[in-house]
Amino acid sequence: MASTENPDPETGKSEPIPASATPPPSSAASFLDCRKIDIITRVLLFSATLTALIVMVTSDQTEMTQLPGVSSPAPVSAEFNDSPAFIYFVVALVVASFYALISTLVSISLLLKPEFTAQFSIYLASLDMVMLGILASATGTAGGVAYIALKGNEEVGWNKICNVYDKFCRYIATSLALSLFASLLLLVLSIWSALSKRT
Amino acid sequence: MASTENPDPETGKSEPIPASATPPPSSAASFLDCRKIDIITRVLLFSATLTALIVMVTSDQTEMTQLPGVSSPAPVSAEFNDSPAFIYFVVALVVASFYALISTLVSISLLLKPEFTAQFSIYLASLDMVMLGILASATGTAGGVAYIALKGNEEVGWNKICNVYDKFCRYIATSLALSLFASLLLLVLSIWSALSKRT
Repeated sequence: MASTENPDPETGKSEPIPASATPPPSSAASFLDCRKIDIITRVLLFSATLTALIVMVTSDQTEMTQLPGVSSPAPVSAEFNDSPAFIYFVVALVVASFYALISTLVSISLLLKPEFTAQFSIYLASLDMVMLGILASATGTAGGVAYIALKGNEEVGWNKICNVYDKFCRYIATSLALSLFASLLLLVLSIWSALSKRT
Repeated sequence: MASTENPDPETGKSEPIPASATPPPSSAASFLDCRKIDIITRVLLFSATLTALIVMVTSDQTEMTQLPGVSSPAPVSAEFNDSPAFIYFVVALVVASFYALISTLVSISLLLKPEFTAQFSIYLASLDMVMLGILASATGTAGGVAYIALKGNEEVGWNKICNVYDKFCRYIATSLALSLFASLLLLVLSIWSALSKRT
């Protein structure tokens, strides 16, 4: 590494300043770029999970349905809390959007205080992976049940319901798509943090 | 870093040997420990996913069932391929156990050829996280459907079936438990690889 001369005022002897003391401009710039990409990805994660959550909780639909043993049709509503799988999905989205908000703020503060990056990025990387596991499993759970609502299952006599509650099913499908996108963002963040400390 | 003297035979002047040239015994030993833990975890992952797979594909059960419109009871069987969610789960288990086998062999070869560790550990870390997402979502999908088989859902008229097909449901529950354990192993491997390059 090239070093520059630095004549000592008392002895006059020149002491070489190691180049590593002055950070090369390129690594400071790439650090900033990394942080910005991280922040943008986390903001995207927050918007995707929050939107998926709002769509889920506003998905309920009421239809006049002819119930067995009842003479006239009665209003029957379909809501996310009719199914434990959808309840698990909504809870996972609440946790994920809250985590996305907090991690965005942490990432912004690391931009302002780079000296804390080494410690905090370990926690962020680990929590990204935990959130990936939770959101992927919750998306799978809701997806499995939503598929039955869409197609039914003749083998076991479970009828489809999306032919009646079309809005309910459209909202759930939208929320599942957003949640799948959020899971992919978490996967990118996890792999990104694993790579960023090795290259 | 302390360094030892190394007198030059020609000039007789002593040239300090940097201590870093001789790898301190502790870091070589800790590298070996890391690799052994990694291999053991991957062998556990392979056994868990393979066992879960075998349990799933041997879960079918046939019962005499009174079908509507049929005078006498008929043999009706419950199998994993009656449900797309369980098919997805089985496919994910096949991919996961195959990946666990290959990554165990890679990890063993890194023990024998440490110089390749830096390159390969990036790929292993990234693939661990991808497998985590896939297995967690497949476990969630099968779990959501299995819960309906166990409890039914009165809101939409889906009857439970585990009261009739108890063996089928027990096998699926066992397979789900093993798969959840495998997902946690993948989470540990992912976090472990993210940490191992930073401390």
